[in-house]
Amino acid sequence: MGKLLEQVNSPADIKKLSVPELKTLAEEIRQFILSSVSKTGGHLASNLGVVELTLALHYVFDFKEDKLLWDVGHQCYTHKIITGRKDKFEHLRRPEGISGFPNPAESVYDQFAVGHAGTSIATAIGMALGESLIARAPSLVPRETSDERQAPRIVAMVGDASIVNGTSFEALNNLGLVKRQLLILLNDNSMAIDATVGAMAKYFSKVRLSQTYEDLRETTRNILEHMPFIGKSVEEAIERIKKGIRMALPASQMFESLNIPYFGPVNGHDIGSLIKLFQALAELNHPAILHVYTKKGKGFEPADQGPSKFHSTGPFKMNGDAVESASDSSRRSFTSVLGKHLTELAQKDDRIVAITSAMCDGTGLVEFRKKFADRFYDVGIAESAAVDIAAGFARSGLKPVVCIYSTFLQRSFDQIFQEVALQNLPVVFCIDRAGMVGSDGPTHHGLLDIGFLRIMPNMVLTAPANEIETKLALEFALGQDKPVVIRYPKDFVPEQEFIRAACSKPFTLGKSVVVKRSKKSAVAIVSYGSVLTEALRAAELLAEDGIAVDVINGRFAAPVDEKIVSLLEQGKSIITVEDHASACGFGSAVLELAAASSHSPKAIRLLGAPRRFIGHNSRAQQFMEAGINADKIAETVKEMLTVRSPEIDIRSIKQVQVTKVQKSKPRSLNI
Amino acid sequence: MGKLLEQVNSPADIKKLSVPELKTLAEEIRQFILSSVSKTGGHLASNLGVVELTLALHYVFDFKEDKLLWDVGHQCYTHKIITGRKDKFEHLRRPEGISGFPNPAESVYDQFAVGHAGTSIATAIGMALGESLIARAPSLVPRETSDERQAPRIVAMVGDASIVNGTSFEALNNLGLVKRQLLILLNDNSMAIDATVGAMAKYFSKVRLSQTYEDLRETTRNILEHMPFIGKSVEEAIERIKKGIRMALPASQMFESLNIPYFGPVNGHDIGSLIKLFQALAELNHPAILHVYTKKGKGFEPADQGPSKFHSTGPFKMNGDAVESASDSSRRSFTSVLGKHLTELAQKDDRIVAITSAMCDGTGLVEFRKKFADRFYDVGIAESAAVDIAAGFARSGLKPVVCIYSTFLQRSFDQIFQEVALQNLPVVFCIDRAGMVGSDGPTHHGLLDIGFLRIMPNMVLTAPANEIETKLALEFALGQDKPVVIRYPKDFVPEQEFIRAACSKPFTLGKSVVVKRSKKSAVAIVSYGSVLTEALRAAELLAEDGIAVDVINGRFAAPVDEKIVSLLEQGKSIITVEDHASACGFGSAVLELAAASSHSPKAIRLLGAPRRFIGHNSRAQQFMEAGINADKIAETVKEMLTVRSPEIDIRSIKQVQVTKVQKSKPRSLNI
Repeated sequence: MGKLLEQVNSPADIKKLSVPELKTLAEEIRQFILSSVSKTGGHLASNLGVVELTLALHYVFDFKEDKLLWDVGHQCYTHKIITGRKDKFEHLRRPEGISGFPNPAESVYDQFAVGHAGTSIATAIGMALGESLIARAPSLVPRETSDERQAPRIVAMVGDASIVNGTSFEALNNLGLVKRQLLILLNDNSMAIDATVGAMAKYFSKVRLSQTYEDLRETTRNILEHMPFIGKSVEEAIERIKKGIRMALPASQMFESLNIPYFGPVNGHDIGSLIKLFQALAELNHPAILHVYTKKGKGFEPADQGPSKFHSTGPFKMNGDAVESASDSSRRSFTSVLGKHLTELAQKDDRIVAITSAMCDGTGLVEFRKKFADRFYDVGIAESAAVDIAAGFARSGLKPVVCIYSTFLQRSFDQIFQEVALQNLPVVFCIDRAGMVGSDGPTHHGLLDIGFLRIMPNMVLTAPANEIETKLALEFALGQDKPVVIRYPKDFVPEQEFIRAACSKPFTLGKSVVVKRSKKSAVAIVSYGSVLTEALRAAELLAEDGIAVDVINGRFAAPVDEKIVSLLEQGKSIITVEDHASACGFGSAVLELAAASSHSPKAIRLLGAPRRFIGHNSRAQQFMEAGINADKIAETVKEMLTVRSPEIDIRSIKQVQVTKVQKSKPRSLNI
Repeated sequence: MGKLLEQVNSPADIKKLSVPELKTLAEEIRQFILSSVSKTGGHLASNLGVVELTLALHYVFDFKEDKLLWDVGHQCYTHKIITGRKDKFEHLRRPEGISGFPNPAESVYDQFAVGHAGTSIATAIGMALGESLIARAPSLVPRETSDERQAPRIVAMVGDASIVNGTSFEALNNLGLVKRQLLILLNDNSMAIDATVGAMAKYFSKVRLSQTYEDLRETTRNILEHMPFIGKSVEEAIERIKKGIRMALPASQMFESLNIPYFGPVNGHDIGSLIKLFQALAELNHPAILHVYTKKGKGFEPADQGPSKFHSTGPFKMNGDAVESASDSSRRSFTSVLGKHLTELAQKDDRIVAITSAMCDGTGLVEFRKKFADRFYDVGIAESAAVDIAAGFARSGLKPVVCIYSTFLQRSFDQIFQEVALQNLPVVFCIDRAGMVGSDGPTHHGLLDIGFLRIMPNMVLTAPANEIETKLALEFALGQDKPVVIRYPKDFVPEQEFIRAACSKPFTLGKSVVVKRSKKSAVAIVSYGSVLTEALRAAELLAEDGIAVDVINGRFAAPVDEKIVSLLEQGKSIITVEDHASACGFGSAVLELAAASSHSPKAIRLLGAPRRFIGHNSRAQQFMEAGINADKIAETVKEMLTVRSPEIDIRSIKQVQVTKVQKSKPRSLNI
């Protein structure tokens, strides 16, 4: 750790430093982030880009009182380092350490736990309006601060990739509600997870290309010279600023048409100028946007060259090579299997088009994009529009495949409802990162998709358990004349040769697959998706204790196979297992079917995520916490056998040990 | 019906008319709409505004091949009238007639069944891209049309109120994907359901105020003179058009910064000019926006004066007075009770702020807005931002109350998840129009909210059954330190003096209320929200047959009262009733709790909406169709008593009639 950084334990320590010292500190922090993330993995390129910006903010504002709102938030490392959390970077994104995203539970310097894009401006508007109301209403001013209290200043950070999001735009359109200071920092690094697309991105890049370093310096000078202070007319000052700025393109046009005072663009690495700018802008009595250029991956050559690769990374060497275990490099993920097979199917069927929203890499579509450039659409961080565009494709007779992470597909709930489900259009949804996501934590878990999609009529929900099934599910989905959802986790496909036979049956609408059956069994474990692995391992554990169970691969959460429910008639109990919330999930669908079928369900137990948020951790640990791993399944089977009413046949049970079962070897599930 | 209109049975008949005849036809259609809607009720003001626009479109385009996409869609009456559906206006919004929104099931001229805002541009992009792909891929060109087939032209209508929606903006930002004709008609009537708010609205109104009738004529002339045709450079032509337009403000600025060719504004009632403009614009080989001014309520003085009142109306007299039955006028709706009580509570608590998204009237907030102008925020059709702004308010220590219809709150799913549930912020959601909505039909039903909200940790879900409970629920919600959802239907509050005592108990988190208990009962009817009325009527019907039942008012869907499940221990069966989808609803939550409690549920039956879309109809008929009315409840109780296993105590049952029970008098539930 650098000498200056060693002495920085809170933002107050920053305020004591000179500009040259801050520059040195920035370099030290950059090295600290590099060294840290190279060991723990995490978001890298974006964090290297905002070191000076973050330091300048903390130098000028006091974020114990003032409010700093992050958008997406994975670029908050410098902020965390200087707000007393640098010692916890050793365990970044691990349960004993800190989250990779802002988190109010960690620090008073964090306002919202975020991870999704486009939210900072709207929440900042709410806080700004709230502070105004509090200041005006005598009954609401906290007594301890009394009338001397200065109204907190509010700063919203937003990236060029997320300002194009619909929520950002809705907020910008409502910025006029705010009649007080509110600074929006547009952090323009001309780079989203993948290349940013769309009209605004093109526009920004045109502006960017037209600027020289000297232009940026001049803009800064110009803003500072003409800056309006309280009492002066903002409009007047802005007019003067604009006149003074020589620019190839009017960068302010977009924002001015929305009546938002715009300043910039300025150099986001010039810490001295940034401090002066923030000092001036902090005094405005109107909202304003400051457009700042930063360089993603700045200071680390490999990230500078490949920011997408170093957007979110595992451990790496300082030459940029990944640190991988030999076994991992040869393993295939659900994502890659899906992406590869989709590309193969597209070769044979011209109707297949792929749509994603800034997740081309993440959803395994790089090869598809290469091969079928005119059938691949990345709409940027715009999940709502992505689904509507897909609906348009389907309406014109094509076969759109929407590839979006489960957590981000939440942004498309209403579009899936109205433009897809209500029309009954054959859109295929490939929901990546469905289930626990490991170290990204609660903002990124995909634990709600079964629930929010199975409520909608017409939707078919399926989940493959392994590699073969991933391919079969995709083939099935593309053959349907209605919307089909395929969910799969951020994980490797399991290597289970022994169940190949059971899983290689083509998918048939609403049909489950019996993977293991025993005449002696009193309990059937019914799993949905990749947790079949856990179900089978539970069966092995139970077999060691002489307990036989059936194992059924549910395959469909909508419609659920009636055969699953008919197990109840055979006197068997059911345990459902899913990598999803227990509420409204697969198990819940089984319960509903049982209730509707007038069966008298003897016992159905649901294993799924509890109704609380599960923190960042390894997937294996998250499974343990949620109680959906093999050990927990086996334990639950034993409990059920114990509490079952006496009329149940328990002759098949040799030994029932309700005491702790032998822990099976934990696997590394993280990828 | 006018003479010309009598002869118009399809768009082909329009094409034969001269411009003067079209003007006459426009007046006839206006009279037809007026006369029709005055009898049936429906959307009026917006439909009177787009008569000429719609006729001109159908004159120029051929929407059997070309695609016309509506946004929101309630302004499609002229379109329906001239596409062979005029005879069905007698039964507009009734089961035997047509829907008040576009519906592909009715006509090949309708592409999407819509009702929510902001979707037309995105779906149009999908269709435009799809048609381009189909034209390029030999394997995809339909054989019958062969190579002579002209690529369909695509027109997206969008209003000034819905172009500010996030989904619209995401689509505009991606319009550059389209390299072919796509015409966006910006129908600017400067009026949303309530006054349109926000930066763009202000911008549009500035532009509008600066225009004279002569300006509009000149703009039209200018566009036509310089119109680029295929082969000519669009950019060059647009430059020339801009130079030729004398305007006080650059109306095109906003769209030009997004690189979208912009034309206008032009007069949307000058049918001759519109036809020429469409003919020219149809030949463009690029997307373009035509900005058209129309007058909401045009031709009907009362609607012209009060477009908000005549946005969506019941039957009315030609002087604008409503036709109301004496009984209806004295009845209070859930909406008005909620709005009034919120205003009263806000009087005592300065922390309460109300937020809505273009539904001030609809959610009963008019009085609140009047009394507390600085604590009321209408963000326009921007549900996503509305929730994030509310989260900001809550974070700053205030008590935000978000009032949005259930169906539109679907737009905020992810914001409720991340900015509210994950942060556990005390935002109160007042979900109006939860449940069946009657004549607006499937795009507007609020049948998913219990499901999509109870999946999220921290959310408390409650539903009042009547007037007293509506007030109590609101008081409860405002006293909680976590997010609380209150759902209530588009309906009158029931008059049930006899249950006042049971319902006047204050709300306690997760506690239900026993409304009717009988020692002899074998079945408990557990209702959620206003369907308590149906449950009580079912109990009366059953009592006539000598069958005693318990009636429990569930009050909370999250957390569900464990006492409900403990009824199972007492050997009772449970029927849950809710005005919501059966999937993932209140009953489903009861099932989950029963499964988790290791109770051995003898029988739980769920009554709720089936997993299919329920068409426009009266609420009473929709209840019947969904099987959640008193008759169906009583019938189900009898079925359960019959099929129950013999160990159940059926001594309490005097006569079990599984044959049709006497139908109770149907009520008029529509408001």
